[in-house]
Amino acid sequence: MLVSALLTSLAINSGLCVLFFVLYSILRKQPSNYEVYIPRLLAEGSSKRRSRFNLERLIPSPGWVRRAWKLSEEDLLSSSGLDAVVYMRIITFCLKVFSLAGIIGIFIILPVNCSGTALQTIDFTDFSNNSLDVFSISNIESGSQRLWIHFCAVYIVTGFVCYLLYYEYNYISSQRTAYFYSSKPQPHQFTILVRGIPVSAGSTVSESVENFFKEYYPSTYLSHIVIRRTNKLRSLINDGTKLYRRLLHLQSDPNQEKYKRLRLFGSKVDLVDHYGKQLEDIEENLRLKRSEVTSAGDEIRAAFVSFNSRYGAAIPFHMQLSTNPTNWIAEQAPEPDDVFWPFFSTSFIKRWIYKLVVVVACILLTILFLIPVVLVQGLTNLSQLEIWFPILKGILTITFVSEVITGYLPSLILQLFLKIAPPIMEFLSSIQGYISHSEIEKSACTKVLWFSIWNIFFATVFSGSVLYQINIFLDPKNIPGKLAVAVPAQASFFIAYVVTSGWTSTSSELFQIIPLLCSLIKRPFSKSTDDFQVPYMQYHREIPRILLFALLGITYFFLAPLILPFLLVYLCLAYIIYRNQFMNVYEAKYETAGKFWPTVHNSMIFSLVLMQIIAMGIFALKKVSLASTFSAPLIVLTLLFNEYCRKRFLPNFTSYSAEALIKKDRGDQDDATMGEFFDSLTTAYQDPAMLPVRYSESADNLNEPLISSLEIRG
Amino acid sequence: MLVSALLTSLAINSGLCVLFFVLYSILRKQPSNYEVYIPRLLAEGSSKRRSRFNLERLIPSPGWVRRAWKLSEEDLLSSSGLDAVVYMRIITFCLKVFSLAGIIGIFIILPVNCSGTALQTIDFTDFSNNSLDVFSISNIESGSQRLWIHFCAVYIVTGFVCYLLYYEYNYISSQRTAYFYSSKPQPHQFTILVRGIPVSAGSTVSESVENFFKEYYPSTYLSHIVIRRTNKLRSLINDGTKLYRRLLHLQSDPNQEKYKRLRLFGSKVDLVDHYGKQLEDIEENLRLKRSEVTSAGDEIRAAFVSFNSRYGAAIPFHMQLSTNPTNWIAEQAPEPDDVFWPFFSTSFIKRWIYKLVVVVACILLTILFLIPVVLVQGLTNLSQLEIWFPILKGILTITFVSEVITGYLPSLILQLFLKIAPPIMEFLSSIQGYISHSEIEKSACTKVLWFSIWNIFFATVFSGSVLYQINIFLDPKNIPGKLAVAVPAQASFFIAYVVTSGWTSTSSELFQIIPLLCSLIKRPFSKSTDDFQVPYMQYHREIPRILLFALLGITYFFLAPLILPFLLVYLCLAYIIYRNQFMNVYEAKYETAGKFWPTVHNSMIFSLVLMQIIAMGIFALKKVSLASTFSAPLIVLTLLFNEYCRKRFLPNFTSYSAEALIKKDRGDQDDATMGEFFDSLTTAYQDPAMLPVRYSESADNLNEPLISSLEIRG
Repeated sequence: MLVSALLTSLAINSGLCVLFFVLYSILRKQPSNYEVYIPRLLAEGSSKRRSRFNLERLIPSPGWVRRAWKLSEEDLLSSSGLDAVVYMRIITFCLKVFSLAGIIGIFIILPVNCSGTALQTIDFTDFSNNSLDVFSISNIESGSQRLWIHFCAVYIVTGFVCYLLYYEYNYISSQRTAYFYSSKPQPHQFTILVRGIPVSAGSTVSESVENFFKEYYPSTYLSHIVIRRTNKLRSLINDGTKLYRRLLHLQSDPNQEKYKRLRLFGSKVDLVDHYGKQLEDIEENLRLKRSEVTSAGDEIRAAFVSFNSRYGAAIPFHMQLSTNPTNWIAEQAPEPDDVFWPFFSTSFIKRWIYKLVVVVACILLTILFLIPVVLVQGLTNLSQLEIWFPILKGILTITFVSEVITGYLPSLILQLFLKIAPPIMEFLSSIQGYISHSEIEKSACTKVLWFSIWNIFFATVFSGSVLYQINIFLDPKNIPGKLAVAVPAQASFFIAYVVTSGWTSTSSELFQIIPLLCSLIKRPFSKSTDDFQVPYMQYHREIPRILLFALLGITYFFLAPLILPFLLVYLCLAYIIYRNQFMNVYEAKYETAGKFWPTVHNSMIFSLVLMQIIAMGIFALKKVSLASTFSAPLIVLTLLFNEYCRKRFLPNFTSYSAEALIKKDRGDQDDATMGEFFDSLTTAYQDPAMLPVRYSESADNLNEPLISSLEIRG
Repeated sequence: MLVSALLTSLAINSGLCVLFFVLYSILRKQPSNYEVYIPRLLAEGSSKRRSRFNLERLIPSPGWVRRAWKLSEEDLLSSSGLDAVVYMRIITFCLKVFSLAGIIGIFIILPVNCSGTALQTIDFTDFSNNSLDVFSISNIESGSQRLWIHFCAVYIVTGFVCYLLYYEYNYISSQRTAYFYSSKPQPHQFTILVRGIPVSAGSTVSESVENFFKEYYPSTYLSHIVIRRTNKLRSLINDGTKLYRRLLHLQSDPNQEKYKRLRLFGSKVDLVDHYGKQLEDIEENLRLKRSEVTSAGDEIRAAFVSFNSRYGAAIPFHMQLSTNPTNWIAEQAPEPDDVFWPFFSTSFIKRWIYKLVVVVACILLTILFLIPVVLVQGLTNLSQLEIWFPILKGILTITFVSEVITGYLPSLILQLFLKIAPPIMEFLSSIQGYISHSEIEKSACTKVLWFSIWNIFFATVFSGSVLYQINIFLDPKNIPGKLAVAVPAQASFFIAYVVTSGWTSTSSELFQIIPLLCSLIKRPFSKSTDDFQVPYMQYHREIPRILLFALLGITYFFLAPLILPFLLVYLCLAYIIYRNQFMNVYEAKYETAGKFWPTVHNSMIFSLVLMQIIAMGIFALKKVSLASTFSAPLIVLTLLFNEYCRKRFLPNFTSYSAEALIKKDRGDQDDATMGEFFDSLTTAYQDPAMLPVRYSESADNLNEPLISSLEIRG
């Protein structure tokens, strides 16, 4: 790719970004768009719709940037929880890393690369006609001693990243403990989920649980709720809710008569009455089914068991309860709202099969996804495109068109394809057997991350058939050499990718295109202005994206340092925009208290090791074998560092220590409200499908909030 | 190798076995050999030395075989502990597996193999001139449908082995629980070892431990013993013990005067006085050092902490105690006699470095060991030997010599080389940071096992340079094909190996050559007939050997079923001989309660998967690709089975369940002797180097037992 193609892509994307910023600055001030741009403030009631018109509303203003910039970490923590803080720290972490890498890259490595003559000498007279490869390490001659500069840069950046990783892990780990100490008593702290409950003949699951815990944990056991099979109930409730929504809509519509419908035999039936009747039927059905479920003993061999202290709940969770390790398996309970109820409907064997199916599905999906990626890669080879589509020959000779096609289109298409990965991965995780939404998203996050690394990084680098790629990994000793050849060759594509995918996706995140379009389409049909839901941050989409950019930055910083300024711009954009979104748009759906960080840490270590392997390969390729040899200890050191961090911090991310639990329990001892809390604990984990619903009555008084609490997720 | 070479080897080894049996049957009846052949009975006092001579003593009698055969599992359990039972069950497990495999192999597969014509048709007229390859799968033509018989055999044997593995795991797991329930209160059940104790300025480790456990475990904490750095003390004590031994020897010798020695200046000094003086010096030195250690606070940040119930000790062991996971690390305490004290002298960082060093050393040792193995393999190629040593040409043409060299010598040399592996591995494990002798041996067992599999199986199969072998494993997709070519080719070597190594080593185990020789040499110098130590079973030598034979049996049963009868004979020998040895010779040094079984299970699964990979390769090589494809699911199923077993049984082998602990604790509540036991608990984990020793006094009254309790192992 030539410099000019990059400049074209840069121009298009900068234009888009500016456009999005300006549009956002105007549109966010229109009251009709409040539910798109500040749903959170609206829901909290801290922002009211002002319908008064003034000129200011039409002039773009950057006030929101200042507010986002000024937001302190404490405010973020109190308003959006620790997960939001961790997310912002990923961005600042990358900013720090790439600031140092950027200084080294731009001011030291870039001039060195340009001074090389292996590919071509730089042409200052017609700058935009230089190939981007001039700026990469490929331009340095074999055996050149200047490669030791790159070698030093690799060591310095690895050391800096490791130092920062340690610092962050330590910080977030201590934040997690602080968060726990400052938290109010919450049901999930006092509760465990027990599965594989053995039931002797003639007794129920409930009796079995009661007997077991009264026998072995008499002093701490409080209560339990056995889980029942409620998938049929749940689908009935969902049907009812849909019908009820429609009914509400009809009732609130002043032009109700319009909707009366001509039936087949000519008789006019009031649609409202019709729906009302259906709803009553469903309700009756629900009542019947529910009593059936309760009486017939449709119990699953799983139960939420609550204890009278956090430490009391932690002991059975940490120990093997029964002599048969497949019975009485305990795990930490999720927050009550976070429980993924549909999961419990499947049996143990089914869950095992599903797990295997998910693994196979993930592998298949990852492999099949290569097909569009390879096609996209074909676009960067104009000559090949001409062979495939001879008709395009005329158009492709126009410089601008060819620049758009090579510089902008490939990464745009790739990005669109990648949009479908997170929902698929989330679906796969949901059938894999996790008991909470947060676990599902955490698992989906890891899946999406590896999917992106494989399908963007490796697929682009080794563009070729699937079998060719698999062959590379089946021949481990040649990996460094093959990476060393293939990775620098794709530098220009990834620079364009950062600009297209990074810049545009971040600014479109600000602009919220899809919610805006939905809101525009819905507006004529809906009168109720309160009918909106506050969205929540989908970490499994956002975290892998940033981590992929970090991977690109770390692997390319010494190969093609030109990528760094673009990455830094992306990170600055993300820093401001996501802070703004946390303030105005997203609500916390659940709180994992920073459990996403270990994924981030692992991904960074992977990036470092990958970079070091490439360095080894490239130094060998450039015939500076001493540098290649000295790169090997760096890999070992990085892996040892990772091992140390796993020992030092990871345990804190799975459970809290006895020390912390006992201290926190003692702090609560004198709290008068604890009695009340323990009373609420007995019903906290009631399956929402088992709670009574009355559509017909609530339909009369438009009791909307009741419905939203009834809606079944998943 | 020809059938005649195998017959030669068979004849030599059968002769040796018979010789050993006859000699054993006679020698064991000589009172002077009691300490070699029945030291255990002697120590227990159940057998007295009869010096009366009778003719019966000179006639070999098989009475001991009958007694060994009749020994029941309960008797074995009560006399030698669960580990001995597990060891014998490994042998019976193999016997069961190879009985079925033997029936299938000899009566179905062997005739099928012989009927093939790929290599040569079998020559019944001159049977002993047939190559052994006639009996192997190599003799079947490519594409022959008869290979489906082998395919079925692979499925049947895999199924049978998995069924038996499940049954045994289940049985031993329940035996383990039963053993726990029936055990008396033992110090290690009530104690944990805590490491990484943080110490604030101005306080000692002891205070720190006391504060922590009184704060967080006030109701269960009993006492603690802080570990001190005693390596200097230990070497002093060892010096003293040696000197004391020599002194004792002199004192008990009636010809004491003889030992008086001419000194440099002509003055005669009584040696006994001289040693006595030295001993007093050491004792004084010891007293000084000990008070120094006690007062100067030479404390290590580790302590044994005892609790008033088993369950109380289990809770801190299972939980993360401190918010910093590298502090207050708890693990189960070993039995007091089993503690490996020298270990504690090293710091955390040193231990980490040692661990790395051990890993590197193991890899280096395994690789370097290939050199003798490859040389040994050279012996099977007579022609190559002639090229190396042209002088031997004349001798090598003699049939008997060449038969001995190809059939007997290679496996004998290999076996001798392998004798040095277990002590080296034990040494490596001992510096790796395990806190008990049993852990060290368990780790050494695994090391020796993989060492044997690599250096006997793979090194023989892929005889060639080290680099060639590593290259094979770096090219994973060709492994089945390469195995399929190389494994059947070595069938005859392994048949000879089973006969030589298996048969002879087992019968020499019975004969106890080395202890017998030692005893013969020592006898003229020692008058005291009570000066002997009961040996203990070295599981890390014996278990890998049996497992290696099981690997050979499982991988070769369908390739060259001729190996199976020899294996069965080996196993029958081992069955009788080891039962005899457990009864008469070996004492239990420690009790892991069956913790060796998971290693056995893993090794069996590895053997199965290896066999299946070879089957896949060989069916592909023989152009029955459908059978090759259908072998793949078997690998997946075997691994899934292993995964299930890990979930189902493995947790029971690391710790006991809450249910078992609480039940056992309740059983003890009414026991009146518990008070006494708790008193003894406070000093159970006292470092033996810190106990007072008085050589000078004990030297006067020949208090031998005192010394043996003082001797420091390791």
